Amino acid sequence: MIRANDPKRKSWVEIPENSDFPIQNLPFGVFKTNFFEPRVGVAIGDKILDLYSLAILGYLKNQPFELDAYLAPSLNNLMSYGKTAVRELRNHISDLLEVSNDELQSQEIHINQVFFDQKDVEMLMPVEVGDYTDFYSSRDHATNVGTMFRDPNNALLPNWLHIPVGYHGRSSSIVVSGTPVKRPKGQTKPNEDEPPVFGPSRLLDFELEMAFVTFDGKPLGSTISTDEAEDFIFGMVLFNDWSARDIQKWEYVPLGPFLAKNFASSISPWIVTLDALEPFKIPGPKQDPQVLPYLEYKGNHHYDINLEVYIQPDGGNDNKVCSSNYKYMYWNMAQQLAHHTVNGCNIRCGDMMASGTISGPDKSSYGSMLELSWRGTQPIKLDDGSERKFIQDNDTVTMKGFAEKDGVKIGFGEVRSKLLPAD
Amino acid sequence: MIRANDPKRKSWVEIPENSDFPIQNLPFGVFKTNFFEPRVGVAIGDKILDLYSLAILGYLKNQPFELDAYLAPSLNNLMSYGKTAVRELRNHISDLLEVSNDELQSQEIHINQVFFDQKDVEMLMPVEVGDYTDFYSSRDHATNVGTMFRDPNNALLPNWLHIPVGYHGRSSSIVVSGTPVKRPKGQTKPNEDEPPVFGPSRLLDFELEMAFVTFDGKPLGSTISTDEAEDFIFGMVLFNDWSARDIQKWEYVPLGPFLAKNFASSISPWIVTLDALEPFKIPGPKQDPQVLPYLEYKGNHHYDINLEVYIQPDGGNDNKVCSSNYKYMYWNMAQQLAHHTVNGCNIRCGDMMASGTISGPDKSSYGSMLELSWRGTQPIKLDDGSERKFIQDNDTVTMKGFAEKDGVKIGFGEVRSKLLPAD
Repeated sequence: MIRANDPKRKSWVEIPENSDFPIQNLPFGVFKTNFFEPRVGVAIGDKILDLYSLAILGYLKNQPFELDAYLAPSLNNLMSYGKTAVRELRNHISDLLEVSNDELQSQEIHINQVFFDQKDVEMLMPVEVGDYTDFYSSRDHATNVGTMFRDPNNALLPNWLHIPVGYHGRSSSIVVSGTPVKRPKGQTKPNEDEPPVFGPSRLLDFELEMAFVTFDGKPLGSTISTDEAEDFIFGMVLFNDWSARDIQKWEYVPLGPFLAKNFASSISPWIVTLDALEPFKIPGPKQDPQVLPYLEYKGNHHYDINLEVYIQPDGGNDNKVCSSNYKYMYWNMAQQLAHHTVNGCNIRCGDMMASGTISGPDKSSYGSMLELSWRGTQPIKLDDGSERKFIQDNDTVTMKGFAEKDGVKIGFGEVRSKLLPAD
Repeated sequence: MIRANDPKRKSWVEIPENSDFPIQNLPFGVFKTNFFEPRVGVAIGDKILDLYSLAILGYLKNQPFELDAYLAPSLNNLMSYGKTAVRELRNHISDLLEVSNDELQSQEIHINQVFFDQKDVEMLMPVEVGDYTDFYSSRDHATNVGTMFRDPNNALLPNWLHIPVGYHGRSSSIVVSGTPVKRPKGQTKPNEDEPPVFGPSRLLDFELEMAFVTFDGKPLGSTISTDEAEDFIFGMVLFNDWSARDIQKWEYVPLGPFLAKNFASSISPWIVTLDALEPFKIPGPKQDPQVLPYLEYKGNHHYDINLEVYIQPDGGNDNKVCSSNYKYMYWNMAQQLAHHTVNGCNIRCGDMMASGTISGPDKSSYGSMLELSWRGTQPIKLDDGSERKFIQDNDTVTMKGFAEKDGVKIGFGEVRSKLLPAD
């Protein structure tokens, strides 16, 4: 067992009941205040442990990291040291925060220097994203889309059960939770027999996804096997893949989605390490037909992570509209990464790979408005009496996620974004 | 007229006849030798002018650039100063190299310090690419592909004449001329009625493209109009968008090409500025149906640039297999960039946007083996008696490009890459 994951560990830092960030989590993020430049922090309860101050005060002496790994506008420097170094850093921080350890606990002045209240700081984009890839790995989602737009009896395309289908997306427009998103304008073709028109998207949707962030990979021309894949994965975030369905419909044949997606994707600010998620591994679905050998895998590589989506109308309450789970993925991260590199494509430190919309088998677990409202034919009722087919201007969409077992809850915090009207 | 473009200018640096790099060109690149770190250079004749040494010696005193703009592993720092600054730098370098200017010309010791022979240095990737986008903007290419794979009477898809169709590609695997490329392995489905198989691609192709490199754009949520677009474009390179046709065929529905493309794309090392190409602007094709207002443009935004592709069998000669021209683009760069940002998508310094395969109306101008050999049905004969349907192991593919007018030739050098066998 990874030392920091021990469910028996308690921290001397007060952890509010039901917190996403007990001592077993220790996710990494980047934060700033009005008084200093961006730096790396670790979440614990309602606090942030400032790794730069911790290092300056001598508590990270045996770590291989230079100071610029902690004092940086992204986690990329820190991640460049690789999986083993980051794992040991997390273990060491867990030791420092553990109730029987007096080293930091006994130094009141230092404690005042190294902890910040999460509510007092601004969380930034945790990584400088190199390439961003989006997969399409939930069978229920692919089936729902296929049923709606193609043929219910032949909903999955012929390649879907053989390939973890994916495509490249836009890195520049990935933003952190709290950043408002503007409704995009674009070309659509509402009427089959009339020319396309230009204007704000009328079918604006969220997509409930999770994404993983990679360490530096191998040189161009090399492959990463399913056995090796998790050595190259740092951790995960919640990912809202905003989608303009009407733009997508008109533009996506034959080269895939483009402007329908690249106006914004929103992520949660804390990267929960794959190490912290280790206890939540579960078996995946039986894959039939048998996959090709490079996609076979040993052991469990699926994860049991509860996911929720809320819509808050302007001035109203959060309404839960979806309860899904990352375990509904057909293709796991090890298969996605093995597939992505099987042709020799190289991955770099800070690449982001999203799951695709995570829908489960029940209607309440569908991960997009497209599916929840079944293409707008079955609007969702909110508690203020209003209805939603898609997302309206000034709605706030929030996604939450957490894994829970043996009395330990590993949470992701949230990705929360308000949709502003088009200009 | 931009001062550096004056066709009457002569340089005191000897320019070999038919050189790609007369004083009117002055493209930017990054080079290194065994004796020093990567730095920025400008090509002139067979020489490279080392901008870092030039700055150290005081010849760039009135420029706004810090030294790390010249001593850097990419042009990104230099480009971050924006269009006006880079334009003035090029004008200033042109002045220094102009035959009537004695400032540098008279300093023999300095001349020995600031010039290198191109054959003695290694050219590196000129930019750190942020996001890479590939368009699909040659009508003849789209028509050829549609004719082969769909319906000759309905070759263009319904959106093609309304949208500069594009998709996101992979930045990490863009490599500079001279870097060998390995034949990728992947899933293909050679027989309709049998399961997919895994192995080296058997239909490996080049795509003749050009790409432009951007300056920093506007914030997320803003748009760049066709009128503004060229202010955000630094320059252009030759671009070989290697493609595995058999992998592409099986994977690309519904989200577009992925592993068929992202194993490698190759570019020429010199970025020819859009300024240097200004004299080669020509009118584009009449666009019918009328495009939507955000895609309308004033003035000429197409460019007359001759393009050539050569195949060299292992140990053999270069065989010219294609003579095309960038003027065959239906959608120009201003339209591409306006479309890309019309939904608020942000562009950053160092983004790269490729044209898509540039085919002309004649068979000799088709920009891919897929079209040249018409899907393998009409193999191309090489001078050693061998035939090519697609690219064979150990073939070297070279692309060249140049614009020519009023006795001035603005060349791109070449992108030259050998295809190595799969592992």
